[in-house]
Amino acid sequence: MASQIIECVPNISEGRRSEVLEEVKGALERTAGLKLLGMSPDGSHNRTVITLAGDADALLAGLEELYAVTLKHVDLRSHTGEHPRLGAVDVVPFIPIRNATTEECVELAKKAGSIIWEKFRVPVYLYEDAASRPDRKELPAIRKGQFEGLAEKMKDPAWAPDFGTPEPHPSAGASVVGARPPLIAYNINLGTNRVEVADRIAKAIRHIGGGYRFVRAMGVALEDRGLVQVSINMVNYKKSPLFRVFETVKREAQRYGVNVVSSEIVGLVPEDALLETADYFLQLESFDPSQVLERKIAELEQ
Amino acid sequence: MASQIIECVPNISEGRRSEVLEEVKGALERTAGLKLLGMSPDGSHNRTVITLAGDADALLAGLEELYAVTLKHVDLRSHTGEHPRLGAVDVVPFIPIRNATTEECVELAKKAGSIIWEKFRVPVYLYEDAASRPDRKELPAIRKGQFEGLAEKMKDPAWAPDFGTPEPHPSAGASVVGARPPLIAYNINLGTNRVEVADRIAKAIRHIGGGYRFVRAMGVALEDRGLVQVSINMVNYKKSPLFRVFETVKREAQRYGVNVVSSEIVGLVPEDALLETADYFLQLESFDPSQVLERKIAELEQ
Repeated sequence: MASQIIECVPNISEGRRSEVLEEVKGALERTAGLKLLGMSPDGSHNRTVITLAGDADALLAGLEELYAVTLKHVDLRSHTGEHPRLGAVDVVPFIPIRNATTEECVELAKKAGSIIWEKFRVPVYLYEDAASRPDRKELPAIRKGQFEGLAEKMKDPAWAPDFGTPEPHPSAGASVVGARPPLIAYNINLGTNRVEVADRIAKAIRHIGGGYRFVRAMGVALEDRGLVQVSINMVNYKKSPLFRVFETVKREAQRYGVNVVSSEIVGLVPEDALLETADYFLQLESFDPSQVLERKIAELEQ
Repeated sequence: MASQIIECVPNISEGRRSEVLEEVKGALERTAGLKLLGMSPDGSHNRTVITLAGDADALLAGLEELYAVTLKHVDLRSHTGEHPRLGAVDVVPFIPIRNATTEECVELAKKAGSIIWEKFRVPVYLYEDAASRPDRKELPAIRKGQFEGLAEKMKDPAWAPDFGTPEPHPSAGASVVGARPPLIAYNINLGTNRVEVADRIAKAIRHIGGGYRFVRAMGVALEDRGLVQVSINMVNYKKSPLFRVFETVKREAQRYGVNVVSSEIVGLVPEDALLETADYFLQLESFDPSQVLERKIAELEQ
């Protein structure tokens, strides 16, 4: 049996001070069993996206380290940046990758929420698959009003936190913790400079416009290349898969006499998303991912 | 840096006596660092294909175990079976999978050849990428005459072995050891019962008929399903890739008014073959396999 892989992508409200980010990095790298897959600081957002992977225990241990270092250095009372935020550690999604279920990630989010409150006195809202009520499912609703409006917002019983008392941590606000499927950032480039073509296709494929349920998309001009792009967030590739979205965009583009020039995956992609793509286009019958040599070897390693 | 993965697929001349195969299995499973991915015995061939994976040291240790057990039980003087064979351990190909080059597998084949001769007094011919001369590249040429003709064949200086003296081991004959790319057994099913369509397409795509250099193919009727099949051995998927062969078969089938119903991968497939397929059909630009989440994690593990 291969080991469990859960991804965790905390976003912290610090993207400028490299010495603080180095300290965060060191603490995470020293955590046993935890893999630090990436840190992407953004100066104008003053925010860093951290990508971690491991099993439940390693992730909880890493999160404690992350909170300890971040709370020591980040004070939202003096924090500025373009990106909306509610907390010093702003959001903490857990994502099942291999040998892990959504339910396990929901449990893990609750365990993390309880630890964050007990050890750091930061109140926690649960979101996405871990949400305690439908109106807390989406991050923007919870984050509305930001840190500056949080004390007031929490007085409303409808916004009592899931863990902790209804008062923000003085410098660290609150955290939003939850579980969600892996997200794939995926762009499809079209052989035209007419951005309206990309706009219309984006509207046709995205959930809000009547398209695929787990697709968010918008049209973007790539002026230096003379192309346009359908820029996509695939928020659940198991249910709205990569290959179907690609084929739909290709077909829609034909409507405008336009070809797909290329597509690109930005950042990390779960292996299954690509295996399922190969499976689809090759019209495979009874393909089993354990036929992948490397996966078979990994299974034998545990 | 992820660890090295080399595959090794020894074929032994025993496919009937389960107690012997159990002993082989036990010896291989006890070898440290070695992964036994599969054992496929064939009674009518009286032969078993064994799939191993590991680094160079683990594979050499496993091979010694395999020779010790096989030579104890298999005597070719009384061996019968439909499949041609030269030795008790008949062929031993080494196959680079990850963080391993063809050159390293050639070196490993030579090291194995030397050990097989020194420890077991079985003479060894090198073949495929490890061949010492062009006329020894292909297995059928070396194996021609089989065990029964081997003593005579070896008297010809042109057939002096690469390791050992020109005399067969009395009961174990000789072994053919080498290095080759991974082989993918791949079938494409066509929506017709006309086997001549599969035959013609097989001829069009296979090397011998003017087709792709690293493709062997033949037409087969699947009578119970009322379909025909182009049955393919992809002997170098890096140079004659899966997606191109699939698309060519699909196009050729149209010539006969026939559709591809499905395709199937038989047994194991290297991950890269499927990642390259997804890359091709999605028209990805600047895709790097290290973007695969699980691969990134594996890289960090070493």
